[in-house]
Amino acid sequence: MKKNYLMTPGPTPVPPDVLLEMAKPIIHHRTPQYQAIFKKVNEGLKTVFKTTNDICVFTSSGTGAMEASVANLLSPGDKAIVVQGGKFGERFGELCKAYGIEFIPIDVEWGKAVDPSEVKKALDKNKGVSAVYTTLSETSTGTVNDIKSIGAIVKDYDAALVVDAISGLGADDLQTDAWGVDMALSGSQKGLMIPPGLAFTAVSKKAWKKAEVSKLSKYYFSLKKYKKALEENDTPFTSAVSLFVGLQKSLEIILNEGLDNVLARHSKMAKAAREGVRALGLAIYSSSPSNAVTPVNVPAGIDGELLVKTMRDKYGVTVAGGQSELKGRIFRIAHLGFMENFDCIVAMSALEIVLTEMGYKLEPGRGVGAAEKIILEIPHR
Amino acid sequence: MKKNYLMTPGPTPVPPDVLLEMAKPIIHHRTPQYQAIFKKVNEGLKTVFKTTNDICVFTSSGTGAMEASVANLLSPGDKAIVVQGGKFGERFGELCKAYGIEFIPIDVEWGKAVDPSEVKKALDKNKGVSAVYTTLSETSTGTVNDIKSIGAIVKDYDAALVVDAISGLGADDLQTDAWGVDMALSGSQKGLMIPPGLAFTAVSKKAWKKAEVSKLSKYYFSLKKYKKALEENDTPFTSAVSLFVGLQKSLEIILNEGLDNVLARHSKMAKAAREGVRALGLAIYSSSPSNAVTPVNVPAGIDGELLVKTMRDKYGVTVAGGQSELKGRIFRIAHLGFMENFDCIVAMSALEIVLTEMGYKLEPGRGVGAAEKIILEIPHR
Repeated sequence: MKKNYLMTPGPTPVPPDVLLEMAKPIIHHRTPQYQAIFKKVNEGLKTVFKTTNDICVFTSSGTGAMEASVANLLSPGDKAIVVQGGKFGERFGELCKAYGIEFIPIDVEWGKAVDPSEVKKALDKNKGVSAVYTTLSETSTGTVNDIKSIGAIVKDYDAALVVDAISGLGADDLQTDAWGVDMALSGSQKGLMIPPGLAFTAVSKKAWKKAEVSKLSKYYFSLKKYKKALEENDTPFTSAVSLFVGLQKSLEIILNEGLDNVLARHSKMAKAAREGVRALGLAIYSSSPSNAVTPVNVPAGIDGELLVKTMRDKYGVTVAGGQSELKGRIFRIAHLGFMENFDCIVAMSALEIVLTEMGYKLEPGRGVGAAEKIILEIPHR
Repeated sequence: MKKNYLMTPGPTPVPPDVLLEMAKPIIHHRTPQYQAIFKKVNEGLKTVFKTTNDICVFTSSGTGAMEASVANLLSPGDKAIVVQGGKFGERFGELCKAYGIEFIPIDVEWGKAVDPSEVKKALDKNKGVSAVYTTLSETSTGTVNDIKSIGAIVKDYDAALVVDAISGLGADDLQTDAWGVDMALSGSQKGLMIPPGLAFTAVSKKAWKKAEVSKLSKYYFSLKKYKKALEENDTPFTSAVSLFVGLQKSLEIILNEGLDNVLARHSKMAKAAREGVRALGLAIYSSSPSNAVTPVNVPAGIDGELLVKTMRDKYGVTVAGGQSELKGRIFRIAHLGFMENFDCIVAMSALEIVLTEMGYKLEPGRGVGAAEKIILEIPHR
């Protein structure tokens, strides 16, 4: 008998009520029944994105929404600024390249947040930039960027601000409208607590204007098609109906808790996780850690990949390893979506146990204790 | 108390065992556990596609796989032939247009199969065509094309043969390798009996050669990325994990029945449906009806849209109406996926009841009786 604890920054655990909702007989997507669900989901998403903008829902991974933000906002010859401070920031650069778009990279040291003034400098130096691509929570490094400050800069230029909030939404605050985000992107298998397969984007008026005239090739990810279908509470192509049904339920759970309470819960879990690992003598990889996932440096003398493997295969606790250049150098404990205090405690305990087995010197219970202190300090809602 | 009967050509009913499998706690996609599922799914799909070709799985609707067949096989300046005999054939044309590809349309009267010699004529008249796009079962008209004969023609040319088998797979025979299909496409919510959200394509060597040199913009649907990920039993972007888990179970069900038995079951249901509606004095819309869905002309004096609506809202039997130019002119009874004899009987009975209510003269039970005769005639497996 082994219980499995999924503590990765996506897929995240799906609440049983959502799993059961999705296990009901499937319905057709061109029916009043589905349209009512679609409408409710769309309204719920607007609340979570803190926006009144149209929200388009793709059946795809989050990368599909990222591709949509390139293919729909730009035309051949356009210039874009891409903040690259991790694997997913770099993906925007790869997407620009795939579409033949010249982009101005802002290369940020991994694990650091971008300095918003760098965005201003790049905009001033390169006239006529059409879009700025950046990330709320960079999943690969567990780093959160200051989107509010970036938004305050970009709003004075003609450029649209695109923010990958795929792992950040529902964990780190995102105020799409108040901060001037023109395309906020997210995915289903993160803070929204359903399985992967849906991607979302909230599209501002400024972004729609660009989408109207964009000349890059697109069809499946054409925003115009989604906008037209929105009028009938539908998507232009058959959507992942069962995931919509699940999302209706998970949004209900989120909105019952209250979005600000959800964000506060993530902030508290993240703080507990950080204090816990620090109490074990470990260092946090990021200088601007996100509330979605805590990135931890693998201590000297420990095989980082073996650590993650042992936690998963021997103890059933799945955390994420490092990606790309961080493989073996960090591990990442997610506290994202359907998680609360004791999930953090389990992660900390498994970490203490496996590190000890691997010969790292620590006092069992110390990390857990430090996490508990945070849990005690911050009022329980 | 009302039971719902979903008899549309997608989404189709999902077997309870599959629903329950998908309701289990979600797993991570970068784990040995998932890789084992991925491998089993891939092998099962090869059996259903009758191919040894690589199979790429996209998280998208079937249209995503259609877009992949355009974006990956062609380059600017290339020519393509598109067989347009319904809404989905036309979609290939729209895709070519979206990618700036000049295409030679073969316009087929809706409800008729394309004459394979038209494909030969078009290939001979237009030298250097890169791809021929056609459809196995054209869902909008319920018409099946003779892919075997088309394949025998196209194999002598440099063009790749692309077949939309989205609603056809598992209902109408498709012999991907034996018939020389270079990209066979399908989706999850049809004969494969799981919810929408996955799309598939089996890619031949001839198609891979074109994909290697294709210069159209692509990223999320880039076949090369999927091929690389296949080596590690994975997809390049987070896949719809829960649908993969469901697909493993539904493929198990299909392969336990045996693919040829599955095809025979569909053929029998289709025959029963056709004989049933004919016995009611109704005419089949297509001259080459598919085994996936039976298209029926709305009789004079009957409101086709009201017919479909009444069957669904009053009696819980959801059949499909006509699409595009066929709206209100036909209705479509699907017998696709998790369906057997008595599903056809229910459809026939609901049709008799609602037609009678709407003032159409028929003898109650006559359509059902004609369907039963087919059920009796063809051996029960």
